[in-house]
Amino acid sequence: MNEFSIIDTYFKKQALHHPQVIAGIGDDAACVKIPEGFELLISTDTLVAGVHFLPDWDAFDIALRSVLVNVSDLAAMAAEPVWASLALTLPQNDQSWLARFSAGLHKGLHQYGMALIGGDTTRGPLTVTLTVYGLAPAGKAVFRSGGSPGDLIWLSGPLGAAAEAIEQLKAHKQPEKALMDALLYPNPETGIRKLLQTYATAAIDISDGLAADLCHLCQASGTGALLFADKIPLHPLTLEYQGEHALSFALTGGDDYKLCFTTKASDEQTLKNAAAAQSSECWLIGVLEEEPGLRVETSSGLSVLQPSGYDHFSG
Amino acid sequence: MNEFSIIDTYFKKQALHHPQVIAGIGDDAACVKIPEGFELLISTDTLVAGVHFLPDWDAFDIALRSVLVNVSDLAAMAAEPVWASLALTLPQNDQSWLARFSAGLHKGLHQYGMALIGGDTTRGPLTVTLTVYGLAPAGKAVFRSGGSPGDLIWLSGPLGAAAEAIEQLKAHKQPEKALMDALLYPNPETGIRKLLQTYATAAIDISDGLAADLCHLCQASGTGALLFADKIPLHPLTLEYQGEHALSFALTGGDDYKLCFTTKASDEQTLKNAAAAQSSECWLIGVLEEEPGLRVETSSGLSVLQPSGYDHFSG
Repeated sequence: MNEFSIIDTYFKKQALHHPQVIAGIGDDAACVKIPEGFELLISTDTLVAGVHFLPDWDAFDIALRSVLVNVSDLAAMAAEPVWASLALTLPQNDQSWLARFSAGLHKGLHQYGMALIGGDTTRGPLTVTLTVYGLAPAGKAVFRSGGSPGDLIWLSGPLGAAAEAIEQLKAHKQPEKALMDALLYPNPETGIRKLLQTYATAAIDISDGLAADLCHLCQASGTGALLFADKIPLHPLTLEYQGEHALSFALTGGDDYKLCFTTKASDEQTLKNAAAAQSSECWLIGVLEEEPGLRVETSSGLSVLQPSGYDHFSG
Repeated sequence: MNEFSIIDTYFKKQALHHPQVIAGIGDDAACVKIPEGFELLISTDTLVAGVHFLPDWDAFDIALRSVLVNVSDLAAMAAEPVWASLALTLPQNDQSWLARFSAGLHKGLHQYGMALIGGDTTRGPLTVTLTVYGLAPAGKAVFRSGGSPGDLIWLSGPLGAAAEAIEQLKAHKQPEKALMDALLYPNPETGIRKLLQTYATAAIDISDGLAADLCHLCQASGTGALLFADKIPLHPLTLEYQGEHALSFALTGGDDYKLCFTTKASDEQTLKNAAAAQSSECWLIGVLEEEPGLRVETSSGLSVLQPSGYDHFSG
């Protein structure tokens, strides 16, 4: 089986048709049109074997997770996922691996109605680079930079489950299913897209830990932040395993893929009502402040946070 | 220097500003708008160390060549290059390598007025995945699939120089500068974009060798092709080194990045005149036929070509 039949068998045949795709896989470039009044959001994530996933992971999980973490980036921009392209580097032409990978990839893409429009297949060390494309009505995409002092900080879900799974894997334990699922199959917060488009002043997805990612949002917005310790939702298993360290563990643990976003203070009740109306839950966890840096208010007082998230090139 | 300061220093600071880029590097996704009446063309190429380039190549050349071969894909679609995103996987944080890579990348991007809008930087085996974005007026992009029997086959330039460089490198010779330049710095045929938009029925860029790539065009168009051996332009150094084998060498040698395109037979003289008017040269090298397969007409008769181009997963 050569490069072209691999692409045909494992990628082209299962690709969804999408009304805005004029030409997908199989030419020198894909050709797409953007509906009038929309802007295009583009995000790329590379997953490297041994760095972002273990080489012995099921290829299904590698592919599916790659879709999910990329879709999370679009969710953070309040964009609707529409297309993806895949650059796949493989050490060898392993048909059973490719079949599993293809199944996971298309499961993820189909779940969000996304068309695979192109990419590249090369031989080399196992690396998965997925680029995803999303649409947002013009002016409605949400950036990291839009926050202002006084804006409320919200979280879309509880933290710490994926980091707990990683912690246990590092200690050579087998994490229970709920934790492994949180790590392998993060749930991108696409359900609150319209809420974000309507109310959010800034947003970011939590891949490197709340402290580090909120810090990025603050830097882009030119603000600092105050977090209310007892308002930050933690996963029950993180609470169980980490006990009194659960909060600091969750603040610095990565791979949550929940959204952290901000709104005007005057929108607090409107957002709560709108979220409740669609059975979404959003936790109010803090407020943006003028003073740079992150602070956490606990029952015993105020502490300054040193953000230390995941950094691919240090430590 | 961490991931964020690498991105800032080597990629964000030199990125061109582009009127259609609403947000570039530094958020969860880039945000762009497509001018009304245009379609977006997207192409991705991965270059792996040891497969597509030698690990000891100057990082400047690796980056610049990556831009050039990607722009060639857009040229083959008759699209104007506008943006790029980069997924770069690096074994270590090597500042001098990054500085050279960044210089080559931005030299290539600036040459075509392209804005770097995003990407990802990860640690792992050296791999460069560049995605490029181009615009074409709606309905004017040129596909592989548009050819019909009777259409004329054209070539945008002489073949064989890059393959000659590779041949000599494999034999541990140092190719002369003209050959190395053809390999390292292919010249994407962006200059004939408007000619293609106006006259081309189908087009492809020659990365895997004329025989293999014309075969792809024919398969997509549902045709075969007849080539006129004595009309195919060959690089003078290929003629010099390969002698009587020059033609077959050039037909199967890759990395030319010239364009092979087709037009209606009735457009022959109009295209020649239009090309001459802008000092471009196009060589008429054959004709599409109903019968599948590739044939070459030589002074000694007709021979059937077995296309054997570069395939990443066989041989």
